[in-house]
Parts: sequence; structure tokens; C-alpha cells
Amino acid sequence: MQPPLQQSESLLKHIEFIAYIDNLKGIIRKNWLFDGSREENTAEHSWHTAMSAIVLAPYANAPMDVNKVTQMLLIHDLIEIEAGDTFVYDTAMMAEQEKAEILAAELVFSHLPEKDANRLRILWEEFEMRETPEAKFAKAIDRFMPLYSNICNGGFSWRSYGISAAQVRNVCSIIRDGSIQLWDLTDKMIKDAVKEGFLLP
Amino acid sequence: MQPPLQQSESLLKHIEFIAYIDNLKGIIRKNWLFDGSREENTAEHSWHTAMSAIVLAPYANAPMDVNKVTQMLLIHDLIEIEAGDTFVYDTAMMAEQEKAEILAAELVFSHLPEKDANRLRILWEEFEMRETPEAKFAKAIDRFMPLYSNICNGGFSWRSYGISAAQVRNVCSIIRDGSIQLWDLTDKMIKDAVKEGFLLP
Repeated sequence: MQPPLQQSESLLKHIEFIAYIDNLKGIIRKNWLFDGSREENTAEHSWHTAMSAIVLAPYANAPMDVNKVTQMLLIHDLIEIEAGDTFVYDTAMMAEQEKAEILAAELVFSHLPEKDANRLRILWEEFEMRETPEAKFAKAIDRFMPLYSNICNGGFSWRSYGISAAQVRNVCSIIRDGSIQLWDLTDKMIKDAVKEGFLLP
Repeated sequence: MQPPLQQSESLLKHIEFIAYIDNLKGIIRKNWLFDGSREENTAEHSWHTAMSAIVLAPYANAPMDVNKVTQMLLIHDLIEIEAGDTFVYDTAMMAEQEKAEILAAELVFSHLPEKDANRLRILWEEFEMRETPEAKFAKAIDRFMPLYSNICNGGFSWRSYGISAAQVRNVCSIIRDGSIQLWDLTDKMIKDAVKEGFLLP
């Protein structure tokens, strides 16, 4: 039995969205892989954050819906298809980026049928607001990952851009809102990174 | 308040797992990106399948838990860290690969604390068995993605390896078990690909 025409059209729009988001694999971050072999792209970063949320969920400060966190992290950087990646330590660009990302969200989610566009856009906004337990935990994971990769690859991007412990502490302090245990580990990692010379004191 | 020692040790094991799975970004598939610019790696493929499951869930044949499908797809290729990727059209290798993947699963999941290792291993086995609605749908997505990328990039990997419509039809027929609507579209795509010369008749 053939699906009714309306449903077919909706399927084609969903299918087009799937081809469109393949572009996230071409967005290159300032961050390097854990083995320092190359820069990371945003699609593989998104996978890594979603996987990490599944594994680290027991360390969240508050009861939360891990499935919502997973979805949030899968979509959290889709807007980079239009807005590109901004280095989190580039504070001038970060201020500009906020406006660009709101416009980008319009564009990115408009590739979906309206109902899905609204649902995913609301989920992305919740992530950006960092008010719910899910958003706080998702942001904690998102901030932890590049720090952890720098710890593993000898501070590859930190050393390239001359980043200091104070800058990392400032950017990563929101990890505490999502997971105190993950923050305690982060704090220890920052101290060790200074000792190792990966980070400026 | 510091977490009790046992919890800290568990956190460190989870953290080590997160560094370990970064290796999936270095597993190169036979499949190329939708724009044909380079080969795809398994981490970004896993992200793309999980995203597609969220978007295509309404087209599943049977009621199912989309969150379970998402987790399944995030982890479905972790075993490639140890076993590597096998080209789905290399039937001799595919037979060998099954044994290698069972051994690889032992290794990969042993990087987690036992409780998590068991849970994710059972989920991976469910995916491989293709018996539940979630596994059938997840496999449908997994098989659809490389077909769709070939449709978009002019049959890049099909033409490189001289793949025929019969081979694609054979490998992709299980899409029908997860989603008849997605299979109808796949069937149409295969016919079009033959007309376009992307696939041998």
C-alpha cells in the first residue's frame, strides 16, 4: 500500500534535512582529537558528547531525563552549519556569535516540517538557556569534552592559542552547574595541566 | 563534599572510556560524504544515524521507543574500534567479521564498569539480532544512510567498487522490516541510480 501523498511529501522533506545536516561533518573546530592527529569536526564532536552523556548521567547534580540530554547534544551544534564554529576563548567573536546563531537556527530548522522544526528549535533554545537540569548537564558535557581532549593530547589547542588556566576556569566553571563531581575532576585537570605546561598559569 | 572513593573510581573508569571511544573518529568507512569530498568516519556516521532516527521515527512500521533506537545507533559501531569497518558488499569478509565483532564487543565494553558494560552490550546484541521493533528500525536507518549518500554524491563508492543494483537491493532489503515507507523510497532510489549510471543494472 502506498502512503497517502501528504505523508510522502513530509518524508521527502525529512530526507532532504538528513542530506542537509551532512554538512556538519565539514565544520572544523579549533579542537583536536584526543590523539592530536587532526582537528575535530562538529558532527563527530556531537556524537562524542551524546555518548558521554549516556555514560556520565549518574554524575548529574539533579534528577534529569538522559534521553532529552542525548537529543539536546545531538542537535546542539546544528546551527554551526550556517554560523560556523566559534572558538570559546575568542570573547569578541562569542558576543557576535550569539546573534548569528539565532539567525542560523531559523535557517537550519526551516529545513524540517514545521512541527519538527518547532520541537527541535525549542530543545536547542533550552540548551542555550542553561536553566533546566537537562540543559545544565548537557552544557557541562559540552564544555568538558574539549578540556579533556586537551588533557589527553598535551594541550594541543591551548598551546596553539596561548590559553591560560584562568581562561579555562572561566569557560569551564559552568560544568559545576551540571555536575559537581565532573567539576571537581575538571578543577584537578586544570591544575595538572598547568604543572605539565599545557596551560599558562 | 567529596564523593565517596568508590564513586570516584567509577567516574575515572567512565572518563577513560570516553577517551577510548575517541578512536572511532579514526575508523574510515568505504562510504563517502554526501558531497563526495572525502570518506566518512564511523563516529560521524553514528551521529548521522542517531539524528536520522529522531527525524524518521514516524515512518517506523511498529510502535517503538525512539530513545532506545537513538542509544542503539550511537553505540552500534563502537566495536569497529577493535574490529575495523567491513564493506557491506564484501560477503567473504562479512562472514569473518561476525566472529571478529563478538570478540571486539568483549574488548570494547570491558572499558566500562560491569553494570554499564552489560547494559550496552545487551543493547548492541539486540541491534545485531534485528528482532525487536527498535532493532529493525535502527538497522533500516543504518542501511539507508550509505545508500542515500551514494544517491547524493553520484554513486561514489558504488562506482569505485563496481556495485550492482542486485547487490544493493540484497543488502538494503532489510530496510523493509523497519519501515515500509523508507523501503519504497529506497526502491525508487535504486531504480533511479541505475538510470543515472551510478549502479550497474
